Amino acid sequence: MNTFGRLFRVSIFGESHNNSVGCLVDGIPAGIKLEAEDFYYDLQRRKSTGLGMTPRVENDEVIIESGTFNGYTTGAPILLRFLNQNIRSKDYSKLVDMPRPGHSDFVMNKKYKGFNDYRGGGATSGRLTLGIVAAGVIAKKILAKATFKTEITNLHGEEDKTKYENILKEAIKKGDSVGGILTITIRNIPVGLGEGYFDSLESTMSHLLFSVGGVKGVEFGTGFAGASMYGSEFNDLIIDEKGHTKTNHSGGINAGISNGNDIVVKVFVKPTSSISVPQQTYNFASKQVEELVIEGRHDTAIILRAQVVCEAMCAIALADAYLIDKALK
Amino acid sequence: MNTFGRLFRVSIFGESHNNSVGCLVDGIPAGIKLEAEDFYYDLQRRKSTGLGMTPRVENDEVIIESGTFNGYTTGAPILLRFLNQNIRSKDYSKLVDMPRPGHSDFVMNKKYKGFNDYRGGGATSGRLTLGIVAAGVIAKKILAKATFKTEITNLHGEEDKTKYENILKEAIKKGDSVGGILTITIRNIPVGLGEGYFDSLESTMSHLLFSVGGVKGVEFGTGFAGASMYGSEFNDLIIDEKGHTKTNHSGGINAGISNGNDIVVKVFVKPTSSISVPQQTYNFASKQVEELVIEGRHDTAIILRAQVVCEAMCAIALADAYLIDKALK
Amino acid sequence: MNTFGRLFRVSIFGESHNNSVGCLVDGIPAGIKLEAEDFYYDLQRRKSTGLGMTPRVENDEVIIESGTFNGYTTGAPILLRFLNQNIRSKDYSKLVDMPRPGHSDFVMNKKYKGFNDYRGGGATSGRLTLGIVAAGVIAKKILAKATFKTEITNLHGEEDKTKYENILKEAIKKGDSVGGILTITIRNIPVGLGEGYFDSLESTMSHLLFSVGGVKGVEFGTGFAGASMYGSEFNDLIIDEKGHTKTNHSGGINAGISNGNDIVVKVFVKPTSSISVPQQTYNFASKQVEELVIEGRHDTAIILRAQVVCEAMCAIALADAYLIDKALK
Amino acid sequence: MNTFGRLFRVSIFGESHNNSVGCLVDGIPAGIKLEAEDFYYDLQRRKSTGLGMTPRVENDEVIIESGTFNGYTTGAPILLRFLNQNIRSKDYSKLVDMPRPGHSDFVMNKKYKGFNDYRGGGATSGRLTLGIVAAGVIAKKILAKATFKTEITNLHGEEDKTKYENILKEAIKKGDSVGGILTITIRNIPVGLGEGYFDSLESTMSHLLFSVGGVKGVEFGTGFAGASMYGSEFNDLIIDEKGHTKTNHSGGINAGISNGNDIVVKVFVKPTSSISVPQQTYNFASKQVEELVIEGRHDTAIILRAQVVCEAMCAIALADAYLIDKALK
Repeated sequence: MNTFGRLFRVSIFGESHNNSVGCLVDGIPAGIKLEAEDFYYDLQRRKSTGLGMTPRVENDEVIIESGTFNGYTTGAPILLRFLNQNIRSKDYSKLVDMPRPGHSDFVMNKKYKGFNDYRGGGATSGRLTLGIVAAGVIAKKILAKATFKTEITNLHGEEDKTKYENILKEAIKKGDSVGGILTITIRNIPVGLGEGYFDSLESTMSHLLFSVGGVKGVEFGTGFAGASMYGSEFNDLIIDEKGHTKTNHSGGINAGISNGNDIVVKVFVKPTSSISVPQQTYNFASKQVEELVIEGRHDTAIILRAQVVCEAMCAIALADAYLIDKALK
Repeated sequence: MNTFGRLFRVSIFGESHNNSVGCLVDGIPAGIKLEAEDFYYDLQRRKSTGLGMTPRVENDEVIIESGTFNGYTTGAPILLRFLNQNIRSKDYSKLVDMPRPGHSDFVMNKKYKGFNDYRGGGATSGRLTLGIVAAGVIAKKILAKATFKTEITNLHGEEDKTKYENILKEAIKKGDSVGGILTITIRNIPVGLGEGYFDSLESTMSHLLFSVGGVKGVEFGTGFAGASMYGSEFNDLIIDEKGHTKTNHSGGINAGISNGNDIVVKVFVKPTSSISVPQQTYNFASKQVEELVIEGRHDTAIILRAQVVCEAMCAIALADAYLIDKALK
Repeated sequence: MNTFGRLFRVSIFGESHNNSVGCLVDGIPAGIKLEAEDFYYDLQRRKSTGLGMTPRVENDEVIIESGTFNGYTTGAPILLRFLNQNIRSKDYSKLVDMPRPGHSDFVMNKKYKGFNDYRGGGATSGRLTLGIVAAGVIAKKILAKATFKTEITNLHGEEDKTKYENILKEAIKKGDSVGGILTITIRNIPVGLGEGYFDSLESTMSHLLFSVGGVKGVEFGTGFAGASMYGSEFNDLIIDEKGHTKTNHSGGINAGISNGNDIVVKVFVKPTSSISVPQQTYNFASKQVEELVIEGRHDTAIILRAQVVCEAMCAIALADAYLIDKALK
Repeated sequence: MNTFGRLFRVSIFGESHNNSVGCLVDGIPAGIKLEAEDFYYDLQRRKSTGLGMTPRVENDEVIIESGTFNGYTTGAPILLRFLNQNIRSKDYSKLVDMPRPGHSDFVMNKKYKGFNDYRGGGATSGRLTLGIVAAGVIAKKILAKATFKTEITNLHGEEDKTKYENILKEAIKKGDSVGGILTITIRNIPVGLGEGYFDSLESTMSHLLFSVGGVKGVEFGTGFAGASMYGSEFNDLIIDEKGHTKTNHSGGINAGISNGNDIVVKVFVKPTSSISVPQQTYNFASKQVEELVIEGRHDTAIILRAQVVCEAMCAIALADAYLIDKALK
């Protein structure tokens, strides 16, 4: 079930402590310029580079295994791999007995009857987002004219960006974590992408966004805040023949279909589950609730690194809609 | 693209002013009791029956065309149809020139090069949700033990249910419309449904929810409000061997997989787009912005009728996840 | 699982003794002229009209339930229905105890635990091919320039068409049935449709052809007869810049992809399973092998009516490949 | 489009002169024993090891990149890779001007506008069947009780196996190639796998078989030879309560569904396209037909190595049907 898309299709694979992680991308038109360096910018944005990000050093050089020739896509599937570091797996078996709150430990163990690779989050590790970001780079190339802008518009309840640094410092001091809301704005998407049922743009974008670990809310345009508005306020009035609207409460999408205005989507990313603060959890060995301390250093705010991942997910959904539109025109 | 699901698959069809609307449902185990009367309760919940709902009388008797025999499912696809009333189509052609704000008029016209059936919303008409509700009834039968509860927890910004009647009366008086938030709580979903990538339960549920007209936001558990919380507050502590948690900020889903707690999803439904208040829109014939008055009577708050539709969507997503889980166990 | 296609998608439904049979077709470009009369010619070809065909009178008037407006496709899914005659179901329950050789009686009963609709073949009835033929009509409209020619090139081992009448008469006299081979030739398919893996044109065409009841063999070009040839004989030499070849042993397809020459596919249709000759079968009630006499009148050679059905299947596969090609170019 | 399957899903990737080839397999139950050595036997069967096979030395050691842990499947997708040898690509560019008869050169060039990787067959290289064979090994593990037997039953028109050696020697001497027919017999497939529409077992098996390069015909049971039989001869009489039949003209499948008897499928594999005999082809540079000599050593009969590949394809189709059956029971 690790595949998404009808024409432009992305499959994901890997675990953080197995050989490699990455993605297999299919449904790519031939003749698109694509080389390893094209991935650099977005992969760099995903990297741990500042306050609130784990100082873990990751190998994130992409290897293009197939599907390009002389620097151009061939039309064949592209396999992108990222080698896992040759790290010695510490003893993760403790997590089988004492699942970390907020993590996948408990559900993965139950779902896969104990056969899941539990080391470092296994198949649900954040490291798998490398493949997402890389697939997003290809998607953006298909959507040649579109531009993407992603920013954190709310960190731990605060919307004033100048206060973010203090919020992070405070959380680091506590050994705790914070969440927030990121806003993605996508320009130059033509009118008509997406479907009424069931592949509305909101449907496919949210489908992908909600598969990013930590995402627990998605809204378009004004979103939930629109609950207080009258229809006469919420409706976006059309003001020209290109369909531009006076306001953009709908986030650029009507009836699931792009209307030519900016697509605006907001994503709630929960506070990082891994924290240094001691927590209670059930010990399946001793059969009682006990205190768990998660060692190591963690991202204080995964939302920082989730930005480019969520942006990539939007690009993947839109690239597929774009190709479908082309086919049926 | 009007199909959703991997095993339990729902396809939708119809327009409000063509022969019929309905759905084709595939991937149904044989031997489930299913007769026309089984659909009655949920279809009744979708009906116009009170304050804030359009007094339009609809035929909503389901016709089971195929896939059942002697009152039981046969394993073959089930086609469910709802006849459209023999209504005289009034002149909708005006909407081609003057697209209604918030509606599909503009995008459908562009997407389908003017060939779309624009009468009464055509293929994006709310009438198509009859098929969704009906498919949801079958989904619920597959999820035999699960229970669903749906309620409006915010109407026009107000959470106090005793004040809803006044809100609706006020909006009716103004000829305006209101939106709100509905909360769906699903009990007795076993641990382990859903996937890490890309078919997390949040992904498939949101995919379907966002294809319902008017839905512009979806959050699980605490949702966006969690942006202000620390990780130590947000994490749900596991307290017993069944995986029950002390709190349920995650809405019953970790890493995309059900964790055995109540699944809680909140859906923002925008104010009805059709309002009696005059609005501005672009007139494609005269090439200038003009005033548009939408005649007829409208739902003041489509959220009222959207409740059972959104609930059905959740059931459809979960039924598919349930069958996949059964296959891979 | 009753759906096929990636973009142009056909779902089938119905049983011969339930309300209706038909198909739901999705992924159709808007703006294609389509009215009930467009289906007439191919449906007529499928009808019982001559020697070797059952004299059963069927209602085969198509009802377009959705997806067209003013005589053109709208881009929305098209539901096509054929009403079943109000026939009194004779007692088919005998077939549950004594499954007919060559029929679906035994496997359907086992697969669906006895819940299948066994009347008149149920969901495996030949009547379901009405929907196939109708979907094929739409497919052919998408492939506007292509032409299809289908003929029986072998009846009961005989390739001389002038002898077919005698073969049929002889079989009718015996109360027996005959099979044969039909050859479909498709012209004007552009170079480049189909994929190396896994959707070679041979793959998708054979997939659909083998779902037609009675089809037990499919070959392209020279087919099995090529087993005796050397490579130097079999290879089709390219003789011009359009890729035309001197011979066409490959049936117009190389590496799964159309090469611009005629696509030639041959289909073996087995002798009709229903015969008047008494046969042995296991009686599940008495637990012993007994003689079964199938009453009623049967098609002596279903291959006669299978011609247009198989042709429709090819058109469906090619229409999907055509749209995919358009998307990825 | 390089993915097949609904639950058990195989995606293929790679080119012979790029980094690696292989497959990504998804929908695998957790807890199946799987290590590199499990692939050895079938990969060995695919190897060049005897008369009529090219003496090319290939690296065919499988690398399990993901999806197993401690020697068992985890439920996560399994990526299998085979490194390409670090071979110096000779000048293949000649093939762009002078496409080899019977090969993909011409169609790939047209389909992908010249951007395809034409070195060594690129994405249509026989080397990609390594991934197929490997995926087949996993499929066979899912179908734990089934057994597969594959043999060549016709080589260059000859059915007497003792004469095969001479046929190969003669062809080698001529610098020519031969084709033939292989027969796969599959035992212990339970009653009830497969669907009436559209996923009959014949449909899914043929779909996969026809995506193997060189396969141009597929028949089940008696196949085309049945064209000469009467229905009273062709019908397989059921003789016991398990559904065993006196004959097996249907090849173990009725109405697309396994009937508990041996599944028998015959596959025509054309003579190898690459031959040493000089051939005519169109020269796109000089714009005239010229003589082409293909250098190097070739498989005299790819059918020899196609055996295990075709067998793997059957296993893949059946494993998917098996999981679907499990889900819907």
